[in-house]
This record gives sequence, structure tokens and C-alpha cells, in this order.
Amino acid sequence: MRSAIKIVSSVALAVSLMACQGIDAVEGEPQPQKSAQEAVVDQGGYALTQEAAEKRLDAQLDKDFNIPFPKDPGGGYTHEVHKANAALIYDAGQLYTLTGEERYADFAGKLMLAYAEVYPSWELHPAKKEQSPGRMFWQNLNESMWLLHVSQSYGAIKDTLSDEHRAKIETDLLRNMSEFLSDGSPETFNKVHNHGTWATAAVGLTGYAIGDEDYVEQALNGLDKSGEAGFLKQMDKLFSPDGYYNEGPYYQRFALKPFVIFAQAVQKNNPELKIFEQRDGILKKAIYTTIHQNYGGLFFPINDAIKEKGIKTNELLHGVAIAYELTGDTGLLSIAKEQDTFVLTPESRKLSQDIAAGKATPFDYKSMRLGDGEEGNEGALDILRASADPNGLAVVAKNTSQGLGHGHFDKLALLVFDAGHEILRDYGAARFLNVEAKYGGHYLPENNAYAKQTVAHNALVVDETSHFDSDVEVGNKNAPVLGEFVVTDNLKVTTAEIDTAYDDVKLGRTVAIIDDAAFDGPVIVDLTEAHADGSHRYDLPFHYNGHLVETNFDVQADPLARAPLGAKNGYQYLWKVAEANPVDGLSQVTWLLDKKFYSVSSSVPKGTKVVFTQVGANDPNFNLRNEPGFMLRAITNDGVSFVSVIEPHGDYNPTVEYTLGSHSQVKAIGHFEGGADEFIQIETKQGDIVGLGLAGDPNPELTHTVEVNGESITWTGAYKLFQSNKHKTAGN
Amino acid sequence: MRSAIKIVSSVALAVSLMACQGIDAVEGEPQPQKSAQEAVVDQGGYALTQEAAEKRLDAQLDKDFNIPFPKDPGGGYTHEVHKANAALIYDAGQLYTLTGEERYADFAGKLMLAYAEVYPSWELHPAKKEQSPGRMFWQNLNESMWLLHVSQSYGAIKDTLSDEHRAKIETDLLRNMSEFLSDGSPETFNKVHNHGTWATAAVGLTGYAIGDEDYVEQALNGLDKSGEAGFLKQMDKLFSPDGYYNEGPYYQRFALKPFVIFAQAVQKNNPELKIFEQRDGILKKAIYTTIHQNYGGLFFPINDAIKEKGIKTNELLHGVAIAYELTGDTGLLSIAKEQDTFVLTPESRKLSQDIAAGKATPFDYKSMRLGDGEEGNEGALDILRASADPNGLAVVAKNTSQGLGHGHFDKLALLVFDAGHEILRDYGAARFLNVEAKYGGHYLPENNAYAKQTVAHNALVVDETSHFDSDVEVGNKNAPVLGEFVVTDNLKVTTAEIDTAYDDVKLGRTVAIIDDAAFDGPVIVDLTEAHADGSHRYDLPFHYNGHLVETNFDVQADPLARAPLGAKNGYQYLWKVAEANPVDGLSQVTWLLDKKFYSVSSSVPKGTKVVFTQVGANDPNFNLRNEPGFMLRAITNDGVSFVSVIEPHGDYNPTVEYTLGSHSQVKAIGHFEGGADEFIQIETKQGDIVGLGLAGDPNPELTHTVEVNGESITWTGAYKLFQSNKHKTAGN
Repeated sequence: MRSAIKIVSSVALAVSLMACQGIDAVEGEPQPQKSAQEAVVDQGGYALTQEAAEKRLDAQLDKDFNIPFPKDPGGGYTHEVHKANAALIYDAGQLYTLTGEERYADFAGKLMLAYAEVYPSWELHPAKKEQSPGRMFWQNLNESMWLLHVSQSYGAIKDTLSDEHRAKIETDLLRNMSEFLSDGSPETFNKVHNHGTWATAAVGLTGYAIGDEDYVEQALNGLDKSGEAGFLKQMDKLFSPDGYYNEGPYYQRFALKPFVIFAQAVQKNNPELKIFEQRDGILKKAIYTTIHQNYGGLFFPINDAIKEKGIKTNELLHGVAIAYELTGDTGLLSIAKEQDTFVLTPESRKLSQDIAAGKATPFDYKSMRLGDGEEGNEGALDILRASADPNGLAVVAKNTSQGLGHGHFDKLALLVFDAGHEILRDYGAARFLNVEAKYGGHYLPENNAYAKQTVAHNALVVDETSHFDSDVEVGNKNAPVLGEFVVTDNLKVTTAEIDTAYDDVKLGRTVAIIDDAAFDGPVIVDLTEAHADGSHRYDLPFHYNGHLVETNFDVQADPLARAPLGAKNGYQYLWKVAEANPVDGLSQVTWLLDKKFYSVSSSVPKGTKVVFTQVGANDPNFNLRNEPGFMLRAITNDGVSFVSVIEPHGDYNPTVEYTLGSHSQVKAIGHFEGGADEFIQIETKQGDIVGLGLAGDPNPELTHTVEVNGESITWTGAYKLFQSNKHKTAGN
Repeated sequence: MRSAIKIVSSVALAVSLMACQGIDAVEGEPQPQKSAQEAVVDQGGYALTQEAAEKRLDAQLDKDFNIPFPKDPGGGYTHEVHKANAALIYDAGQLYTLTGEERYADFAGKLMLAYAEVYPSWELHPAKKEQSPGRMFWQNLNESMWLLHVSQSYGAIKDTLSDEHRAKIETDLLRNMSEFLSDGSPETFNKVHNHGTWATAAVGLTGYAIGDEDYVEQALNGLDKSGEAGFLKQMDKLFSPDGYYNEGPYYQRFALKPFVIFAQAVQKNNPELKIFEQRDGILKKAIYTTIHQNYGGLFFPINDAIKEKGIKTNELLHGVAIAYELTGDTGLLSIAKEQDTFVLTPESRKLSQDIAAGKATPFDYKSMRLGDGEEGNEGALDILRASADPNGLAVVAKNTSQGLGHGHFDKLALLVFDAGHEILRDYGAARFLNVEAKYGGHYLPENNAYAKQTVAHNALVVDETSHFDSDVEVGNKNAPVLGEFVVTDNLKVTTAEIDTAYDDVKLGRTVAIIDDAAFDGPVIVDLTEAHADGSHRYDLPFHYNGHLVETNFDVQADPLARAPLGAKNGYQYLWKVAEANPVDGLSQVTWLLDKKFYSVSSSVPKGTKVVFTQVGANDPNFNLRNEPGFMLRAITNDGVSFVSVIEPHGDYNPTVEYTLGSHSQVKAIGHFEGGADEFIQIETKQGDIVGLGLAGDPNPELTHTVEVNGESITWTGAYKLFQSNKHKTAGN
């Protein structure tokens, strides 16, 4: 059998080398029992990774080098060949360290020498980007990446080189390139931005490799060594104190690599700096928060995220391996097992060994508030998990700041996950990464026009207009104001408000996971509010994943026609499928996904419509995924409150042919106010009552009272769960 | 934590007991090393199954029996309680055999006695079905199922009973019920139909259990023991000589259970009958063909299939275990591993033990023609697999007969699978099994109106009318005529024709998998033809699974409106999304699914349109899945030929961020005729030429010549693959 992929020329080489930094381990049949001695060296998935890398490198050893004169921009031929060569050099260096086989050192040295021959003569790249041009590549970001890999290899193999060769490589390649990236590109090197981190990390690693302390100091403290710029400053600024990266996990992953790779070198060479303890261990936090921001192995797809991206990415393979080296946290081994992919480093090998030795323990997934912004005071990403089960119910409340140019306009949006799936979806980016036929693989026009707009998210839209009127600048200046974040066994809850998303409307949302025996399992309570004077239209979309099976009201999809729901701000991309009227102020919509049912039961104002939608209008190029949704739509003069219970339930088993619990348990939802205090009461069909008190003032000392159907309900503190009698008798 | 499912009263009990016959084994952490002695008793997944069953039974031992007077029809309370009791009795008997614990025998005996008390007094069921009424259940099919399970348990535990109790149970329950099912229900018992198999198996098993040879003889040879009816006759008639079941794999699975369970008992009690050797080993064949008719663990979803149904179903858990007992074929252990689910039998335990002992070998998936019909001459299900890899490229050509009332009108339809997914889909049944909100869980009205219609399949539609004008009776009388089925390393091919699907149009289709180095991997060649005089419209739909990424012609989805494509025969359920004109007679459509691209490149007649569709028009109740498709549409006066290459290609990797081979390799497709002989020539963008000769006369001795662009191409035999130069140099 031939491989399914034909390897064609050097582009394929680049691919094979990219892949070499993250090869999927092959799940094999159980291996025959080995002798005790062999068992010690059994390295499971890692061993396969190294074996494949050796094979791949061995096939290159006798080939002529291909070092084309720089010509093409990103993705072009010369771009890919130079990337591939860096990967070859890096792998050869790593393999020399790991195996001691001199042929790898020879190869890496010779390829570096070949680059040293030509690099000094390369002026700025002919296709250079205006802002930060490179010489080997169109932008110096790629040049930094190249050097980050090559300098590590040089450090590994330099002892095998003659003095003459060392001098040649150091002078004509490593120093030449480093100085171009530092003194020659101050606007990047001194910038507090992830491109700056790549540059400082590359130059700093070069400093360690060639033994030039000046380079290291510039890398750490900026060109003038003052500490106003450089790696340490970037560590201070680019992550929030909780280790959250402003643009979200999709970009956090990318930013992570130069931080952890260089920091590891600093730790080895300058242990006195205690780099991993700096800023209360910010780099470890950043690795952990990246992990915490995944569900089912994929990153929470907020902002311009490619939804397929997750914990198997190369950056996080290094991150997890280095974090394990630092912490010995055996929970990380569970993550490494899920990654099931290893990189060519001793730390990655150690992961594999310890997994094989049965040391893995469950990763400690938990609810957490990740403060956003340099000071941690620009909103937060609030993660609520019903349990430590990575496939359990989880909610992400996007109470973050805008997240710069890749940010979406979805303040206080929800993402819901359960049973390994997205349940209420974020569309993510409208982009087919590297698929030439889809707009060259770039962000599609529909990314700005639909995916970034508020209506593409599970977030409240006022007057068919996106938050901040889709102005990134305004968005960047205005973060939500956070309320209390509380986590107990039976109640996890967060609140946030924002009064700048719209000029004259203040938005608020409280999201809770409650656990009560009145339900099959944990359920979500979502109170979405708008405070306003004057008439507005409020749309609260729920982008559900699955097949609609039941509603508590009559609804008929239009059998014969479809038309766009609106004309602007993303509405033009939604087909209007149906419109319906909830009965007695309760809207219930149930869908089926895989083996479970999901219901959203909502208490809604009188006159509310439920509008069913499908993505795909105004999409002549078939660029959008045709996903279903529904929205609660109310027009009022005095703001709005939608109180929803989002309820996973039942069991659909077509294999054994039974279906249980296909109907929502919710019979009624009451919403009561007493001044600034609120009380939500949920009645189930079996007659159980569950309540949730929400205080206007979060002071834990204060007592609150709300009249509920003639009865006074009193509690102390910001939030209070009133459990059902069933829960009490169940002894929880 | 509470369980996600609340167990409520006896309906849940029934469920838990259904589940007990097929419990998912829990994938655990690697177990600590055991001593050699312990290792011997390690039964992996099976041990968990038995443990769970013991726990479940133990919880029932002290409870009062619940034997309600029969009242409800299928799915109702009394129905489910009696089903649950049968499962309890069965499990108790199995556990007694497996553990020797008398408490299980006691329990089973007492519950049988309790039934013996009341059963004789039960007349026909109040909700009885007209055709085949039961007494405990509304139809005697369920009564047969009940007895099939209970009689096995009686056989297992009868030695623990007093003479008096034995007499009571035998007389008032087992004989009373058996005689009702045999002499009392001759119209079912003597019928050659799967309901008859359940009845004969139940009565025959009772005969063995109580030692009544008369029962066994009646079961085997019919009420009058003549052999004109009974189990042996059913074995002769209900499967084709290749072991194919007329209604397709979804129903084959259901029919299988009484055959294999009773045959196993016959083998034990009357080995001289060599029941498993009868009719050239038909029962083993039936088990194997059921397995062969799966992809990715799910049955090929032809006809009224629930698409989630697959090899984990209870029937096939028994089937695989019994087949392994009979054959020792270690390939079956791979299937059992994939099932990852065990039943309470010694045979299932053996599977688990042998898997744990590392005996599993790959199952021998291969291309095969499964003749349909009692004599094997009513068409065939043709399965082409590119390799033994269960996740490799596979094509099913539905050249079968109609398949009775659950059959769909899709003669010569294609289903294509690759990389673990459906690529070109069959819609399967329009039904949400047991989901009350969806039409009570029954087949939806859209099942007849859409899912059964030809246009819902990858099959040629003439004049917007379904095959046989949607008349099942006509369909049942007319099967396709098969051409040659040939399997070689590089060429797998099948042909079929039918001239009865339409009055005046003869349909033909040749489908091949070819393997040539000019392509990334194996590709499919599909020649769909219609022979007719007079003007007809021909629609060839491709129900693709994935996201459209590229076409070789301009196409614009209507941005502002949708309307149904037609008015009848399923067309009313398709939105017309776009219509386009292929350029120079070549239509190319490429989509992305998961990590791969798929292209359909088609040589089409002049004037052909490509119509893009989405399922979901005229669907007010949101019953249909909104799946995309496109169809080649031509209007001609003299029949039509569509020659398509269906090509998996490339690699989309968003984790490592590369995309390779996103474009089809096909540059041109030529179709040449020389009398009744045909030649298809595929030219790739790299300039390779691959040819396929198709003879009008399949005689292997005959030589054929077709003029191709002025050159004479000659071959001998029914089919001939002309490989590219690249293939030849690649040394394949």
C-alpha cells in the first residue's frame, strides 16, 4: 500500500518536518511481553516519535541541501523550504542529544554552514512586509522562529564542530541574524507583543548557544538592557495575573511557545533568576490556563478561533512537557495521554515514560475565573464546570475584554459543552485554514460580516446592532464589570455587567450551574437582562447543536420559502425558518445530540416571539456552515429579563432501542424582584421547587428578602441556592 | 455524584435489563500487573459485564414480583414489565450457570412459578393485533421472544427445582405457552418469515429444556413435521445462499438472533444434524455477512435503517460469540474488540478471555458480492473495499432486490465510505426511534415521502419519478440483472442493469475502485447510464457529507431566497440552492470532511446543469436533517451517460497548520464506445493517463477494441484497467 499522501518535493518535506514536531502516536496492538530490561527503556508513544524522526532524518543525510534565494511570501516555495530546513536542523540537534549519534550533529553543522555561506549576502526580502520585514522570510517573525529552532540545535552540537566551523556559523549566521533581529529590528524586538517574544526568545537562545551574555541580557531586558522592554517585560504585560491571554486560547497557544522554550533555557543557564517563579509563576499559570481552556481536547472557540485547534498543537506539547518537568503534577500526564503526541525533547520522553509507568492521575479540571488584562481588571473568562469530569457539563461565560483585532463582539456570551460536545455553539472564525480554494485560506469576508457579529453568538443583541457598534477600538477600551464568582459543590455562579456595549442599554448576565436531585444531573440557570428606558428590540440567540425534537408551543417551519432575517450586522446571513409564540410566558425548545437531549426553558416577557434560524443566507460562495439556532425576541419599553434553564437530560440509545427522559423536567420558571435583589424559582413537572437568590449587593454579610408568591424568601450573601425537598431527602 | 439517568419504576427496570444484555465495557486505566494465577481469570470487559449483572440481580432478589394482567400494547406499561421480567429470568439462569450461585436459580424458579400461576388464565391480549395476537403481549412475536429467553433459563435451573415445581412450570407456563405459539398460532409458526423463526426457536428451545422431542421436531420441521415449514425451511428460505437477508443489514441483525440461539441448542442436543453445516454453512455465513455489512461499526444504512445501529447490537454480540465458538476465527476477536460489549454467555466470556490473551487478528474485510433472493438470483449487494482496512475506501452498490415494505426505491444506488466516515450518504430512515415527540417514535411521514424516494439516494432519477413509480409490489417483482463482479489488487468492479425501474428507460451502472499511482490513493470510477428513446430528464444526485470548498465552474448560491426543487416524489423536500453550468463537459465538485478532501469529477452531456440542494423544504415539523447535495441534471433524447471519478485526496491538518492536495487530480474524463464495448479514460493534471475497458459481452475469452482518439485500445475479458506510466514505474 502506498501512503495516502504523496510526498512531493520540498513543500511536502516542510510538512513532514512540521509533523515531526508532533507525530500522532500509533495505537497499536498490545505489545508482546518484554523482558524486564527492555521494559525499562519502553517509551511508548515517544519511542515511536523518535524512531520516525530518525528514519526521516536518515533519509535526508545524503541529499544535497536546498537553500534557495529568498523570493516567496508566506506559504510560497522558498518560505516553506527555509521553514523545512530549520525543522531539519532542529530535529538533527535534538536527535544528537537524545541518541549521541554523530551523523545527526554532522548533518546539522553542515546545513548551518551552508546557510552561513549565503545569509550575510541576503538583503531585505523581496516580498517584504512593510512593518517588520525579514531577510530569509517576508516578515521577521518567521526569521525569529527560524533562529529559535536553529540556535537550540547549535547549542546541542557545537562541541562536535571545528573551531573554524564554529566561528563561521556564529559570525555569519547566528550573530548576523541575531543582530538583524535585535538592533536591526528594534520596532519588533522592543515591542511588548508576541512577535517581540519570538524575537527576544530567539536572540536569547542564541546568546546561550554561543555564550554571549550581552545577547541574553538584551533579550531579557530590552535593547538598552533597562528592563523597559524585553522578555521579562513581556512576561509582565502579555498575560493577565491569572495567566489569561487577551486574545483568547486560540492565540494564547501560539504565544506560549517562545515563552516556555526560552524560559526553560533561562532556568538552566541562569537558575538564580527563578524565571518560572517570576510574577507569581506566571508562565506555569499560562500553560495551565491554556489547558483549562479546552473541552474535548479543543480550545474554547471564542474570537477568531479555528475550531479544530486544541491541545495537540505543537506549542502545548512543549508546554505540557515543560510544565511536568517543573511541577511533577501527574495530572498533566492525563493531558499528555489525551494529546497522544510527543515532541523530540527529553521532557516529552519523560511524559511518555511516566504514562507507561502508570503514574497518570486525572487532571484537575475545575471552575475558575481567569481575570483579563495586564492588571487582571478588564473582565474575565469565567469557566464553570459541573465536575472535574472533562466530558461533564461546562459553561464558558465570555466576560472578557474585546481581545484586539481578532476579538468578536459578544460581551457576556455563553458557550455550553456537555458529553464531549458543544451544546450551545460559538461559530468561531469563518475561515478554512490554508485551503486555497477558500479565499486563499485567509479569513473569509464572512468572518467580519457574520462570525464577529453579536448575533453569531449566544449573546444579547439590542436593536439588531452588534456590541460597540462593531467598533474594535471602542471595544478595546471597555470591559465588562464583574460581579461575584462563587464555586460550591452544588452551585457555581458568575455575574457580569456592561453599560458600554450600547449607548443607552446596560446588559447583565448571571450564569449558574446548579446541582439538585430534582433534575437528571446538573443544569444551567441563565439570567440575561437589559436595563433601558425607551423602546428597544432584544434578541437572545441560542445556537444549538443537534436536531430539534420538541417545543412547548406550536411552530411550523416555512415549507415553501426562506428569506434573510435582517439586512445588517450579521442578520443578513441568517435564514428565517419559523416564528412562534410561547404560551403563558414559557418557551421550551428541546433538541437531540448524539445520545442526549437538551432543553432551553425560558421565562420570557409577554409578546416574545421565538424565531428559528439557519446560517447560510447571503452566502453565494458556500462559505458558512448551515447551523441551526433560535432566538428569543422581545420588544419592550423598559429593558428585558430572559430567565432560562439549560438542561441536559435523558438517554437516547438506538443500539439497545430505548429512550428515556426525552422531555424537559421544567414546568415553570418564576422571576421575582425585591429592589435590587432577585429570586429565580424553578418548578419541575414532578412538583419539586428549586430556587436561586441573587443579591443586588454582593456583600457577604448582607441579608436579602424577596417576596415570592406571597412568601418571603430570605438569604445572606451574594447568591443562594434553595434546593428541592428531593435533593434534601437524597441526602446530598 | 448521582447517575445521569434516574431509574424510575419498572420501565427503567426494563431498560436496565435490556442494557444488561449489552453493557459497554468501561475503558479503564492500565491495570496493575497481576500474578500469573490472577491473569488466567482476567476476563476484561466480560468480567465487568457479569459483575454488573450480579449487582443488578442481587438488588432484585428480595423484591416482590410484579406480574401485571396484560393490558398495554407495545411500549406500554404491562408490555415493558413482562419484557423486563423475561430479562430477569434469563439473566438469573445465565448467572446460575456461570457462577453456580443458587440464589439466582431460586429467583428464576420462583418468578417462573409466579407466571405459571396466572398464565393459563390469560386469554387473548385485550390490545391484540389482528394478524398474530398474543396473550401476555399484544402480538405473539413478543410472546415468542419471552419464551425464547425464559425457556433457556428453565433449562439452566430446572435441576434445582422440586418435581412439583417442575411439573407446575412445565405444564402451566412452558407447555401452555408453547402450544399457544405452535398449534395455537399456526399462521405464524408455519410461516417462512422471521416472526416464524422466533416462534419455532422459542418452542424448540422449550422442547430441549423440558425434554419433549415432539416440540423440537415441530420446531425443526413444522407443525406436521413434514419439513414443509419450520426452522430448517426458514434456514433455506430467509437468507440468500450467500447469507444476505432480503431487507438489508438493519433487519438482518434482528432476524439473526433466533437463528443462532436455537441453532446453538440444536448443535448441543442433536449434533448429528450438523445444523451449522446445513445449506453450506448458511448460519455462519449470515453472521459473517452481517459483520461485513458494516463500516465504522455501523451497518450500511440502506432501506429503512436507523443509522446509529451497528455491530454493538445484542443480536450481533451473540452472533459473534457463537461464530467464534464455531470457527475459532481470531479475526472475530477484532470485531468483539470493536463491539467492546459482552453478553452473559460462556461464549462471550471466551471472546473476552481470548482478546485479553492477545489472540485477536485483523478481521478479513474484503470486497464481496452478496447475492440476494432465496436462490441468490435476485440482484446482489455488491461491496467493494479498496483494502482490508476497515476505515479505508469502500463502496456499496445497491444492486439488490426491493427488500419488501422497508425497501427504498434506489436501484443501483451508491454509498461511499472513507476514513471512517460516510462520504456519499444514504439518508436511511426518517425516524427518531422511540422519541415520543417525533411522531411517537414511529417512522415519520417523511420516511415514505422523502427517505424512500429515489432522489434521496445516490441513484439516477428519470423524469422526477421514483423507481417502480414508488410501487413496492412492482419493486418486489423486479430485481436488477447483474454483470460481472471482479476483484483484483488494483481493480474491483461491478456492473448491474435494470429495465423495469422505468417503463421505457433501461438503467445501468458500473462502479469500480481503481488503484493507480497517478492518484493519492484508490479512487472510484462510476459509469451511470440510461438507455432510452425519446426525451427524458435525468438527475443523478450526490448526497455529499462535508463542506463544499471548490467547483471548476462558477456557482452562486441564491443569496436571498430558497424554493423547493420540485413538487413530488421527494423533490418537494429539497431546497434548490444553486444551479450552474459545467464548462467543457466536465463538472468538478470538491468538499472537505474532517481531514480529507473529496472530489466528484464527472464527464457530462452538453447542456447538463449542476443543481445544488439542501434537504429541508416542506418540513414544517423540523423532521429532516438539513443535508447538502448536488445533482447532475441532463435532458436528452437518447439516454445518458455520466462518468464520474470519486476521489478522496489531500490532507487538511489544522493542528499542525498545513493543507496538501486540496485540488482534484482529474483534468479530463473521456468516454468512448465501440459497439457494446466502452472505454473510460482519465487524464490527471500531472499528465498521467488511466484507462478502464468495459466489455459489452463478459465472456472472458473475447477480445474488445475501442477507438480512443484515433488509437485502438484492445483488451480481453469483461474489464481491463490500463494503468498509468507512473504506476508502472512505481513498481506496483
